[in-house]
Amino acid sequence: MKTALSVLGRRTAAPPISWLMKTALARPQLISLAAGFTDNATLPTAISRRLLDQILRSPRTGRPALQYGTTAGERHLRELTAAHLQKLDGGHDRAHAPERTIITGGSQQFLYMTLEALCDEGDIVLVEDPTYFVFLSILQSRGIQARGVKLERDGLDLAHLETVLERLKKTGAIRRVKALYLVTYFQNPTGATTTLAKKRAVLQLLKRYERAAGHPLYLLEDAAYRELAFGRDAAPPTALTLPGGRDCVIYAGTYSKPFATGVRVGFGILPEPLYTAVLRIKGNHDFGTANLLQHLLARALATGAYDRHVAGIRKNYARKARVMQRALAEHFPANVEIWEPGGGLYFWARLPKAISAGMKSKVFQAALENDVLYVPGELCYAEDGWRRRPANEMRLSFGHASAANIRAGIARLGQVLKQFVR
Amino acid sequence: MKTALSVLGRRTAAPPISWLMKTALARPQLISLAAGFTDNATLPTAISRRLLDQILRSPRTGRPALQYGTTAGERHLRELTAAHLQKLDGGHDRAHAPERTIITGGSQQFLYMTLEALCDEGDIVLVEDPTYFVFLSILQSRGIQARGVKLERDGLDLAHLETVLERLKKTGAIRRVKALYLVTYFQNPTGATTTLAKKRAVLQLLKRYERAAGHPLYLLEDAAYRELAFGRDAAPPTALTLPGGRDCVIYAGTYSKPFATGVRVGFGILPEPLYTAVLRIKGNHDFGTANLLQHLLARALATGAYDRHVAGIRKNYARKARVMQRALAEHFPANVEIWEPGGGLYFWARLPKAISAGMKSKVFQAALENDVLYVPGELCYAEDGWRRRPANEMRLSFGHASAANIRAGIARLGQVLKQFVR
Repeated sequence: MKTALSVLGRRTAAPPISWLMKTALARPQLISLAAGFTDNATLPTAISRRLLDQILRSPRTGRPALQYGTTAGERHLRELTAAHLQKLDGGHDRAHAPERTIITGGSQQFLYMTLEALCDEGDIVLVEDPTYFVFLSILQSRGIQARGVKLERDGLDLAHLETVLERLKKTGAIRRVKALYLVTYFQNPTGATTTLAKKRAVLQLLKRYERAAGHPLYLLEDAAYRELAFGRDAAPPTALTLPGGRDCVIYAGTYSKPFATGVRVGFGILPEPLYTAVLRIKGNHDFGTANLLQHLLARALATGAYDRHVAGIRKNYARKARVMQRALAEHFPANVEIWEPGGGLYFWARLPKAISAGMKSKVFQAALENDVLYVPGELCYAEDGWRRRPANEMRLSFGHASAANIRAGIARLGQVLKQFVR
Repeated sequence: MKTALSVLGRRTAAPPISWLMKTALARPQLISLAAGFTDNATLPTAISRRLLDQILRSPRTGRPALQYGTTAGERHLRELTAAHLQKLDGGHDRAHAPERTIITGGSQQFLYMTLEALCDEGDIVLVEDPTYFVFLSILQSRGIQARGVKLERDGLDLAHLETVLERLKKTGAIRRVKALYLVTYFQNPTGATTTLAKKRAVLQLLKRYERAAGHPLYLLEDAAYRELAFGRDAAPPTALTLPGGRDCVIYAGTYSKPFATGVRVGFGILPEPLYTAVLRIKGNHDFGTANLLQHLLARALATGAYDRHVAGIRKNYARKARVMQRALAEHFPANVEIWEPGGGLYFWARLPKAISAGMKSKVFQAALENDVLYVPGELCYAEDGWRRRPANEMRLSFGHASAANIRAGIARLGQVLKQFVR
């Protein structure tokens, strides 16, 4: 007898990262620079305890937090979110309407539902080369094609984007393109941040190809790491603030990474008709994210506890990034190119082109034998058939590991690399 | 220019209930017997406050609760869930393996992902006539056909199920049938509970048609209201405990309704290869339900606070059901058939066949004008083309309304009905 699984059920592949996580669990002495986990030491236990106590000690505030809410999410949290984004964008406010905001179970759920609303099997989404690998997993699962566009340290390679769009136009495949997905702040996996100028140029390019596409070409801006800037200066404004941004930018944000990953509240802002479609899909997924978490975040935002917490973790990650930076300078061979981030959780290391750091490479195997784990960069490249996936890169996270483990892990990895890189 | 929306994005309809909810909000003096909300007065604010304080006051227990967990959900909660189900099933244990359990954002998310894993567009799912309307919305959104099977007060009409299967076999459409969906305890919307004998007969019937289908025919058992039994006796065991149940029953459970709807933690148990498929899909949706909520429920279960709370709300709902039952006896015309539930949140009222209580009916309009709202039963029937959707029924909820409002609401509705029903 055949399986009863759907095409999607059969097609959805095991996440490549699950093998890494199993490997990490099986070797307790292993130092993982692979996990995208945030720092345990800075999780807001005291803040959450105090705020939850405030919420739950009176029936007036406690009961609504324990009851169903609405599918779009708590109105108060959506208003606070709009105000919060306005502040991050230096006062720019027109783009952040609570009426176009939806609260979701992390920004991951938002990305998933947005792709459901936007893409049929066989459609095309342009992505950064490299990009967030779980986004690639969603595309794979749903039979959506990914096309990589070269990423530079300040955002997309615009000339390459134009080349890709032109080529898609020539073959007619442009009609299947629905969106360009960018992780615009301290990108996962490279740490690169897209400048506002590049966002503007990207929007203009997309606009130029809309006629050939026959429908809007959306910029899906994933701002998951936005608030984890090391410096005092805010990262660049979102593409939502640019001319026409309201109509063609889909913004994915999250409170999960800056506040607590165990609280998993994200949000999205979309233009119509996408907003209504995603709202209806959310109604079918879960008719609204758990209210208790939404009330906790609303109170954290409203009382200023959120901002104080984020200021603290930014300093902490900046400190850990410096630790990793110094260790890399000390232990890595000089011909390994390092992309140093201005925020977020990741360094990006590029070995000489001939040397593979992929899952099946000698480098990866030797690293494992020396009890250190990284994310092979090749996992972050779409399999798009237009180029081979580069295999000479690695994502190094300083988010979860302690400073001592960052130092030890990079030292071990440096030792390994010196065997392969001259 | 055309819209860029996907087929799913364009197809997903506005939930019929959203109109009802908007109507309710616009008339604050209106008594809603429509909402599936649970009782505000019995929400576990004090329990949640105490348990969250215990969790968050030490870094040892607080930090894991605020960190990412695993995609399947916390091992401890899955073990407690297995033990909890074993108790509900009178000691039967083989069917409830933590290894086949996944923790989800309410059981709704579980239903959604299960349909993703199981059904392609054009596939068929058999449902009760009537059934849970948000399940019908998922089917509609995903282009899955629903076929209604008559429901009696003790579960499916078995002869009708056989007729439907036989007809599907004759036309060859049986090859597109993937599952039968039953809400087996205090069903939404009728309050009916499926007996164990009927579950057994249903499994045998499905088994009999598997060869014609060419693949397994799953029983998807939705036990959302299971713990809300009024009596001291537990409701019947799940179909998981029956011979072969492990291999062909998918079980959807939730802590959301019995504990707190604002905490939104559900779970599912599935046979392979479905379990692996749903786990991968969950990885793409959100890679795991918010850990803080999972830790709260695990502590509630482990300390006995959960069981004490559920015992209390069962008494409360039993009391409110009696209030509604008495009001119905007093105010409703004698020729309205009432299905009295043994648990859950709903009564089911059937007017004489000729009288419509549907969304556009005079009865519904008159009820609104008299400031009382119910769920028209027709919304709970699949549009399957094999029969007209009955329109003479109404779902009456005693979950959210106060005892006084239940009395007043039923009195108003009784007045209305007396104008139409002789």
